[in-house]
Amino acid sequence: MICEIISVGTELLLGDVTDTNATFLSRELRELGICVYHRQTLGDNLKRMKEQFSLALSRSDLVIVTGGLGPTADDITRDVAAELFGMPLEHNEKVAEQIRGFFLRRGIPMKENNLRQALVPSGATVLWNECGTAPGLWLEKNNKEMILMPGVPSEMKAIFSHRVKGRLAEKSGVRFSNRILHFHGISESAVDEILCDLMAKGNPSVAPYAGKGEVEVHITAFGDTRETAEQSCRETEEVVLSRLGSYFYGSGETSPEQEVVRLFAEKGLTLSTAESCTGGLVSQRLTSVAGASSVIGLGIVSYSETMKEKVLGVSPETLENDGVYSEKCALEMARGVRAISGSDLGIGITGIAGPSGGTESDPVGTVYIAVVSREREECVRRLFGHAKSSRDEIRFRAASEALIMALRQIQLK
Amino acid sequence: MICEIISVGTELLLGDVTDTNATFLSRELRELGICVYHRQTLGDNLKRMKEQFSLALSRSDLVIVTGGLGPTADDITRDVAAELFGMPLEHNEKVAEQIRGFFLRRGIPMKENNLRQALVPSGATVLWNECGTAPGLWLEKNNKEMILMPGVPSEMKAIFSHRVKGRLAEKSGVRFSNRILHFHGISESAVDEILCDLMAKGNPSVAPYAGKGEVEVHITAFGDTRETAEQSCRETEEVVLSRLGSYFYGSGETSPEQEVVRLFAEKGLTLSTAESCTGGLVSQRLTSVAGASSVIGLGIVSYSETMKEKVLGVSPETLENDGVYSEKCALEMARGVRAISGSDLGIGITGIAGPSGGTESDPVGTVYIAVVSREREECVRRLFGHAKSSRDEIRFRAASEALIMALRQIQLK
Repeated sequence: MICEIISVGTELLLGDVTDTNATFLSRELRELGICVYHRQTLGDNLKRMKEQFSLALSRSDLVIVTGGLGPTADDITRDVAAELFGMPLEHNEKVAEQIRGFFLRRGIPMKENNLRQALVPSGATVLWNECGTAPGLWLEKNNKEMILMPGVPSEMKAIFSHRVKGRLAEKSGVRFSNRILHFHGISESAVDEILCDLMAKGNPSVAPYAGKGEVEVHITAFGDTRETAEQSCRETEEVVLSRLGSYFYGSGETSPEQEVVRLFAEKGLTLSTAESCTGGLVSQRLTSVAGASSVIGLGIVSYSETMKEKVLGVSPETLENDGVYSEKCALEMARGVRAISGSDLGIGITGIAGPSGGTESDPVGTVYIAVVSREREECVRRLFGHAKSSRDEIRFRAASEALIMALRQIQLK
Repeated sequence: MICEIISVGTELLLGDVTDTNATFLSRELRELGICVYHRQTLGDNLKRMKEQFSLALSRSDLVIVTGGLGPTADDITRDVAAELFGMPLEHNEKVAEQIRGFFLRRGIPMKENNLRQALVPSGATVLWNECGTAPGLWLEKNNKEMILMPGVPSEMKAIFSHRVKGRLAEKSGVRFSNRILHFHGISESAVDEILCDLMAKGNPSVAPYAGKGEVEVHITAFGDTRETAEQSCRETEEVVLSRLGSYFYGSGETSPEQEVVRLFAEKGLTLSTAESCTGGLVSQRLTSVAGASSVIGLGIVSYSETMKEKVLGVSPETLENDGVYSEKCALEMARGVRAISGSDLGIGITGIAGPSGGTESDPVGTVYIAVVSREREECVRRLFGHAKSSRDEIRFRAASEALIMALRQIQLK
């Protein structure tokens, strides 16, 4: 099955909005084993929409269109599709009721033009929209199909996930299973080298991707049944982990901060942070995870030497002799915040995020990270990035490293 | 001048990467007064690239292609373009030297296939790439033009900004001037209403956009000369500011944190933060700005009541009588961190970011923000978002509000 994705909206062609819908749909369709050869973006223009919808239907079995289903006169996706399929638009009272209910629940007066969204091509399937007023529509004729969905990403994703994906999976007849494995502390090219024999195989496919400060390995296995696909996926996963296990930190939709919160919550442990160059990024990432409150003790951001000494109790000797960029300072920061908070684990981070401030011995990107618990103290010196790395990248990678160190230390317990 | 943008790369069609190049180019072309009617995405496939490059050249004056200029066999953008323009590929020794130099400087051995990138369609203009090995190429024949650039965003942007934009501006003959104004504390629909008469005019164009926790107003004026365009842009800017001035916080590429760091640095002032529900986000956003170290005193993230009392000195009476979600608590947090750090200004934030923890009187999204300096103490209660707002959105908007409050308090000085 060949699919084409069309994103409609003048705001896309003006560069006001980045088209993340096309990315989402591409990934979902790949998972379903449906090929995408063409993607295009059009403004709200009748002539060009007619031309391109026709072209798309001539070369693809399925055309998915997002955008142009709004209530105003320039939203013409459903009109163009209805005309091409020869399925005239009809008022659908059930949809109209849903739209009226949507406004009623919010206490907003409904404008008459909102009922344009209750027009449905005769014979099309309505895909209910629980997050907004424009329903999705599924048109089918002569072995050609067109799915129309709103352009608002949250509405589109909800409709796709709940109303479209399952039916497409049935149609494509593809049985597959997949995994995403997350690795920290190893480069994409090193993973490439280690997994090159697996990557050369077609099924299961093994593909490493450089994530933000980490490498993801995507495994996708196709099979005659879901069980054989799952079996083959699991076997490949085991091979990958046997080679890269020491860098592995989690699977699925996850992140170092999610793993830390999950594991600490599970073990009933708490942690606190003392950050200098990362400026609160570790704390912010941890607290972005719902439920972090049971795990987080205290976070201190101490940029200046004075605050390191006064608030965290870093000794004047350390600051004088070893300096603020040193293992000793990182360790004393970690011990300090652990002592103040009474948390099980303390993290201390100090270094140079740039763009200026580097020295011959400690260039920009040098970061000292300490993780301290009752049983164990650990400190590393890392050099993140090279001359071109941005401040943001250095900070992010340092924060990831600290989170992974905390994770490992607790996993050892 | 009509332009079409083509993004080449199988990784785009697989959904591994979001196409931000197309957004960047769309925005840049709009600024130059060049219309984009079509955008498309293709994989590294010879047949489809030939078909679509031809189609694009038939309906557009200028086609900009990104991607497919790499050293491997599946990078065929330059081959397809050379064939369509009838400009056979020739080895270009100057480009080859640049590529060799690139590897030499990095101390990496060059592979022979990298010299594929030194092939140039005969008669094409080479657009030097300072950030990578593949140069851009500009082909021109029979009033049709095609610009090829690498798909790596940083390389593409550098080539476009330094080698392409100026020449396109000359060609388009358009003289324009533009502004981006940032507003906080007002909704996009309210801005729409206030500016609707200006938005109805064609030139200068006035367009509000919902940014992250703020509204941007883009003004673009076209004129016969740059001076008349600038004059007309400035006049419109004045009208916009006369109506929305109280919500305005900065112009150009900026953010609340950048404005705070700039203004505090300018005035030689420092600030410190005590955060609960925002979990270090204010601190992290401030320290993401280069040069923040002169402005930031101390950041404390105190999730628990104990830490609020023990570290920040929030009184047990406040916690007992008013509770942790109260103006009193926010104020005492701000005062506490200001006292510990000796900073000029203290920020205190406490509230409920969700997804759980809301009550009848303080639903999820309720946040108390205090800003305290020697001369002035201020505290607000805000309800961010509605039932569907995510934790991230509530935290981000609360952090923005705190930063803007700090900015306003210092502007008053």
